[in-house]
Amino acid sequence: MNNPMPLLPRIHSPADVKALPEADLPKLAAEVRTELIDVLSRTGGHLGPNLGVVELTIALHRVFDTPKDKFVFDVSHQGYVHKLLTGRADRFSTIRQYEGLNGFLLRTESEHDCYGAGHAGTALSAALGMAVGRDLRGGDEHVVCVAGDAAFTCGVSFEALNNVANSTDRLIVVLNDNEWSIAKNVGAIAEYLNRIVANPAYAHLHEKAAQFVERLGGKTARKLAGKIEASVKNLIAPSVIFEDLGLRYYGPIDGHDVGLLTRTFEFLKTQTEPVILHILTTKGKGYAPALAKPDKFHGLGKFEPDTGETVSSPTPTYSELLGKTLADFADRDNRIVAITAAMPTGTGLVGFAKRHPKRCFDVGIAEEHAALFASGLAVQGMKPFLTIYSTFMQRAYDMIIHDIALQNLDVALCMDRAGLSGDDGPTHHGLFDIGYLRPVPGLIHMQPKDEDEFVDMLWTMAHHRGPIAIRYPRGAGTGVKPKAQPKLLEIGKAEVVRHGKQVALFGLGNMCEVALDTARLLEAHGIDAAVINPRWIKPLDTATLEFFARGCDILCTLEDHVLPNGFGAAVMEHLAEARIPTPVVRIGWPDEFVEHGSVPVLREKHGLTAHAAAAKILAALPARTKAVSAA
Amino acid sequence: MNNPMPLLPRIHSPADVKALPEADLPKLAAEVRTELIDVLSRTGGHLGPNLGVVELTIALHRVFDTPKDKFVFDVSHQGYVHKLLTGRADRFSTIRQYEGLNGFLLRTESEHDCYGAGHAGTALSAALGMAVGRDLRGGDEHVVCVAGDAAFTCGVSFEALNNVANSTDRLIVVLNDNEWSIAKNVGAIAEYLNRIVANPAYAHLHEKAAQFVERLGGKTARKLAGKIEASVKNLIAPSVIFEDLGLRYYGPIDGHDVGLLTRTFEFLKTQTEPVILHILTTKGKGYAPALAKPDKFHGLGKFEPDTGETVSSPTPTYSELLGKTLADFADRDNRIVAITAAMPTGTGLVGFAKRHPKRCFDVGIAEEHAALFASGLAVQGMKPFLTIYSTFMQRAYDMIIHDIALQNLDVALCMDRAGLSGDDGPTHHGLFDIGYLRPVPGLIHMQPKDEDEFVDMLWTMAHHRGPIAIRYPRGAGTGVKPKAQPKLLEIGKAEVVRHGKQVALFGLGNMCEVALDTARLLEAHGIDAAVINPRWIKPLDTATLEFFARGCDILCTLEDHVLPNGFGAAVMEHLAEARIPTPVVRIGWPDEFVEHGSVPVLREKHGLTAHAAAAKILAALPARTKAVSAA
Repeated sequence: MNNPMPLLPRIHSPADVKALPEADLPKLAAEVRTELIDVLSRTGGHLGPNLGVVELTIALHRVFDTPKDKFVFDVSHQGYVHKLLTGRADRFSTIRQYEGLNGFLLRTESEHDCYGAGHAGTALSAALGMAVGRDLRGGDEHVVCVAGDAAFTCGVSFEALNNVANSTDRLIVVLNDNEWSIAKNVGAIAEYLNRIVANPAYAHLHEKAAQFVERLGGKTARKLAGKIEASVKNLIAPSVIFEDLGLRYYGPIDGHDVGLLTRTFEFLKTQTEPVILHILTTKGKGYAPALAKPDKFHGLGKFEPDTGETVSSPTPTYSELLGKTLADFADRDNRIVAITAAMPTGTGLVGFAKRHPKRCFDVGIAEEHAALFASGLAVQGMKPFLTIYSTFMQRAYDMIIHDIALQNLDVALCMDRAGLSGDDGPTHHGLFDIGYLRPVPGLIHMQPKDEDEFVDMLWTMAHHRGPIAIRYPRGAGTGVKPKAQPKLLEIGKAEVVRHGKQVALFGLGNMCEVALDTARLLEAHGIDAAVINPRWIKPLDTATLEFFARGCDILCTLEDHVLPNGFGAAVMEHLAEARIPTPVVRIGWPDEFVEHGSVPVLREKHGLTAHAAAAKILAALPARTKAVSAA
Repeated sequence: MNNPMPLLPRIHSPADVKALPEADLPKLAAEVRTELIDVLSRTGGHLGPNLGVVELTIALHRVFDTPKDKFVFDVSHQGYVHKLLTGRADRFSTIRQYEGLNGFLLRTESEHDCYGAGHAGTALSAALGMAVGRDLRGGDEHVVCVAGDAAFTCGVSFEALNNVANSTDRLIVVLNDNEWSIAKNVGAIAEYLNRIVANPAYAHLHEKAAQFVERLGGKTARKLAGKIEASVKNLIAPSVIFEDLGLRYYGPIDGHDVGLLTRTFEFLKTQTEPVILHILTTKGKGYAPALAKPDKFHGLGKFEPDTGETVSSPTPTYSELLGKTLADFADRDNRIVAITAAMPTGTGLVGFAKRHPKRCFDVGIAEEHAALFASGLAVQGMKPFLTIYSTFMQRAYDMIIHDIALQNLDVALCMDRAGLSGDDGPTHHGLFDIGYLRPVPGLIHMQPKDEDEFVDMLWTMAHHRGPIAIRYPRGAGTGVKPKAQPKLLEIGKAEVVRHGKQVALFGLGNMCEVALDTARLLEAHGIDAAVINPRWIKPLDTATLEFFARGCDILCTLEDHVLPNGFGAAVMEHLAEARIPTPVVRIGWPDEFVEHGSVPVLREKHGLTAHAAAAKILAALPARTKAVSAA
C-alpha cells in the first residue's frame, strides 16, 4: 500500500501535495521529519517547532491554495515545512547559511510567503489586515493565521482579538497548542488552555461542525463527534474566552491527524464568521531527543542526528555569564531580581532561576509588561535586571522612555544579542539600540570589550541608582576570565588600551578587538595608532575623545551597530559641537537591513574587519601623516 | 444635617478625608466637581474623566492610606481628584501651567503619587510589580490599580493579567467602566463588558462579599445582596474572562455610590487573592455639557463654565487638515484607508470616518496592532495611513522596524503632535521620533514648514510605494492655505526659502519660521543668511547641505526635537562623513525631559527662539565674517 519511492523530491509546489493520495500523507510527513532532522543537524535551526507542525502544514496545503490564499505564520520559525512544500526542498540544505534560505519566512524569498516574521505575536493582527483588505477589494481568498499558544502571552494578540469580530466575517485562526513557547509557557493563559484541554466539557467541535465531520466519517472523527454529543447533552459547556471576544471556537483536536485536520479545514473554509481552531501538537514530534528536551530543541546549532548531542563551547557565552554573575550578586543583595520575556535559556537566567526562584520572573513573550513590571518593582526599592535581546527591546521602547527614564527608576536593561545576530538574519540583528536609546534623557548605555569588563559593568549597574543599559553580543566573548572580585567602573570614563599619536581607534565593545588588530596592521605601515575602549555610549567620555581628536590626525570608530545614529555618529556629533575638525572614519553596518549569514562572512562583506578599517584609514589619512610615517 | 462651611479648603491630606462624617461626603464630592469645572474652564484639561471618578477617589482615600498604600492610576489623567485630596488643592488652579501642577501624576510632585503616566495601559503591570516587590520585602501595604475600560483594549493590560495570578495573592484592580476611552470604546472587549452589565446573571458580588456587605447594612447594599442571591439561585453565572485568568471578579457596582464603594473596598482589602472590582461610572458626571459631549470633554482647552462652549481657532489644525485631505484623496483613490488608535478626534479622522466609514479603522488604544493591521492591509495592496501621535508611535517601534520597514511595505506613518506638546508635558512631547526612525533602513521621514506643504507631502506619500513617515506639530500651522491641487515633491530635495552667503539656517518644519526670523535678526547685524527648508530628514538633501556648508561660514540647524540623534546631528554626521569642517550651531531641545508649559514659554526658556539662535550664531561666527559684515 505504501508508495516505495521517496515522495518529498517530487513535491515542487502545493499542487503536488494535493495530488498525493491521502494514504501517502503519513509517508510524506515521515520524510519531511527525516529531512528536517538531517539538514538541521548540520545547519542548526528551529527543529522542535517544525517537527510539531508537519501534519498541520500538509493539511493546510491540501485544503488551501497559496499564493492566492494567505498563510500567516506567527514568528514563522515553524515555516520550514511550508518551505519544503512550496518549491524550496531542493535548496533546503542551505537554510540559515549565507545566500541560502532564511530561517524565517521572507516575502522576498517566495510568493508563497505573504508575510515574514521573527518576532512573536504579529500574525493575528497582520492576518486581520489581510482579511479586511480582501473584504475591501471584494476578494474571495482565505486568510489563515497560525499562532502558537505562546503568541497569546503577547498583548498584541489580544489587541488583534479585540478587533476581529467587528472587522471581518472570514478569518481562520489556528491556535497551535504545544504548551511550549521557547521555555515552558507561563501564566494564566497557559493554565487556561490546559483547563480547556483537561475538561471533557470543552472537548467539542460545535454541533454543525460535528455533524459535518461525522458525515465525512472516519474513526477518529466519529469518536470525536460522540464525545461532543455527550458534552452537549450532559454539561453546559463553559464559555471560552475566544467566543467571548467574538470568534467561533472549535477544538481542541489532534494536530497530528492529517485527515482530521484536512476535513476540519474543509469545513472551516465554508464558514462566514471568524473562527479559531485549537489544535494539540507535540513539539519535537517524531524525534526522541527533541521530545526529551523541548527547550533545547526549540532552536539550536549543529547536533549529532542520532543522539541529539551538541558540542558546547568551551568559552561561556555572555548570556551564561550574565546569569551566573547576577545570581552571585543576588546572593548578597536581596534587592536584585531578574526578569525575562520567555527566554530563560537564551538570556542565561536558567541558573539564576534555580538559585533564586522567587526573584526570577519569566513573564512570557511580553516585553512591554516586563519593562513596566520592572518599573513597579523599582518603585518598591528592588533592583530589577530586565534581560531582553536588543531586537526585542524595541517592543519596550515606549516603556523605557515613558516609565523607566522619565521617572528615573532604578531599572537595569540588559540587551543580549546586541549587534549582528548572524544566521538568524535581519529580524534578529540587534543593530538599532544606540539609535533609539541615545536620545532618551538620563539613560546610561554601555558595552564591554570582554567578559571581565562585562562583569565589572554588571557590578557597576548593580550599584548605580537609576536607568542604565548594557548591550553585549551573541555568543562567547574573547575568553577573558573575569577576576574574582569585580570592580566599580567610573561612569563616562573610557579606557585607553593602547597609546598612539597619529590615529585613534575607538573600538566599541566587541569591536575593540578589531580595533587592536587594525592598530597592528597600521603599525606595519609605520602608523602609530592608539586604541580606546569607549565603554560608555552615553555619557560619552568627551575628555578622552577631545584629547585624541586634538592630538591625532584621524579618528576611527568601530561599532557593531548601524552607522546612522550609531556610536560613530555620537562621536561626530560631539566633535562638531566642540568644533574639532579632525576627520572621523566610521566602521559599522550600513543603512540597510543586513541579511543572514555567519558573523565573519557578513563582517567581511560589509567591511567590519581590521583589513577594511586599515584600508579606509590609510586612504583617509592626510598626506602629512603618511609622509611622517614613511620617514 | 449638611455642613454649611465649605469642606474642600479643609482637606489638606487623606487624613482629613477620613475624618469627615460619611454624611458630608456628597457635599465634598459636589465641591470637588465645582472646583474641577471652575479651574479647568480656565486652564483646560481632562474634565470628563475626573468628574467620573470623584466618588471613587474619595472612597479610596477613606479606606486606604497613601503614601504607604499605592494607588496606580492608568494614564493618570483622572488623577486630578486625587491631587485635590492629597494636599494640592491650594495649587490646583496652576494645573497644566508652567511651573504649576502637572496634568498627570508625577512621582516628583507628591509622595502620594507613586507612579506617573500619560500613556494608557501601564497601570496593571506597574501595580503588579509593586505588589510583588511588597511580597518580596514582606510588606503589608495595599496596591490598588485604577484602570478604565479602554485600558483593556491595550494589549499590555492582558500581558499583565496573564501574570497576576501566579505572581501575587494581594492586588486590587478597579475596572472603571464608563464605556468611553477618549472616543467611544471599540471592539470585542467593550461589547463584552456591555454584555456583563446588561445581563442580570452577571450582576453579582460573590457570596461572601454579599454577606459581608449585607451585614454592614445600608439600603443599597441590601438591595444588591438580594440581587446576588437571586442570581446565584436561579442562574448559572457565566464565567468572566477575568476569573478565567485567575482574578476574582466583583461587580458591576455603582461607581458613584461612595458608601457602597467604601464598604466594598473595606471588604476587598481583607482578601488574599487578586481581585478585580468592576464599577460603572458616568464620564462628565454632574456637568451637563460634558455629559452631552463626552468625547469633547475628555480633554479640552479653556471653555465657558456655564455652557461648556469653547472658542475654536480660526486656523485649522494640522490634524483637521490631515483628515480632510486624506478624505479628499480617498474619494479618488480607493486604496487609501486610515487607521487611528482611539484618537479619531485628536488625529483629525472624524471627518474621514464620516465620508469613508468602511475605510476608517479605530482599533482602540492598540498602537502595536494598528501598525501590524496596516502591514496586513498593505500586503493586500491597500495604502494605509497610520495616524498616531509621535509619542504614542513609540509603542509601535518594533513593528515599524520588523514588519513595515524590513518588508518594505507601503505604509504611511502620520505622526501628529511631533515636537513639543506643551501643557501636556513630558509624557506627551513628541521629541524622539527622528532619533528612533533615522536608523531604520529605507524609511523616508519628512516634516512640512506649513499647511500647503503638508498637503503636498501627504500627496507625495499617497503616490509613494514603500514605508514613509511624516511628523507635524500640535495645533494650527502658520495659516498658509493649501493650493487647490497638491503637487508631488521630489523626495530628498530641500527648498531654499531665502538666499544668503554667510550663514545657512536649516529650519526643519515648524522651525522654518523661526529660521526666517533669525535671518531677519542677523540681517540687522549686517549678516547675510540663507534659510533652507530641509523638508526631508531622511533622505537628507546632501547636495544642498554641502553647497551651503562649502559656501557659508557657519550653518545653523533648528528643530522641534531633542538634539541627540536629531536633525542637527544628522547634518553633523553627514558633514563629518563628507569632511566639511564648517561649524554647525544647533537649536533644539536639550538632552533632558522637558517640563510642561506653553510652547512660547518653554521655547524661550530652552533657547528655541530667533533671538537665542541669532545670539548663538553671532557668538560662533568666525571673526572674519563679522569683520566683513561690519565693513
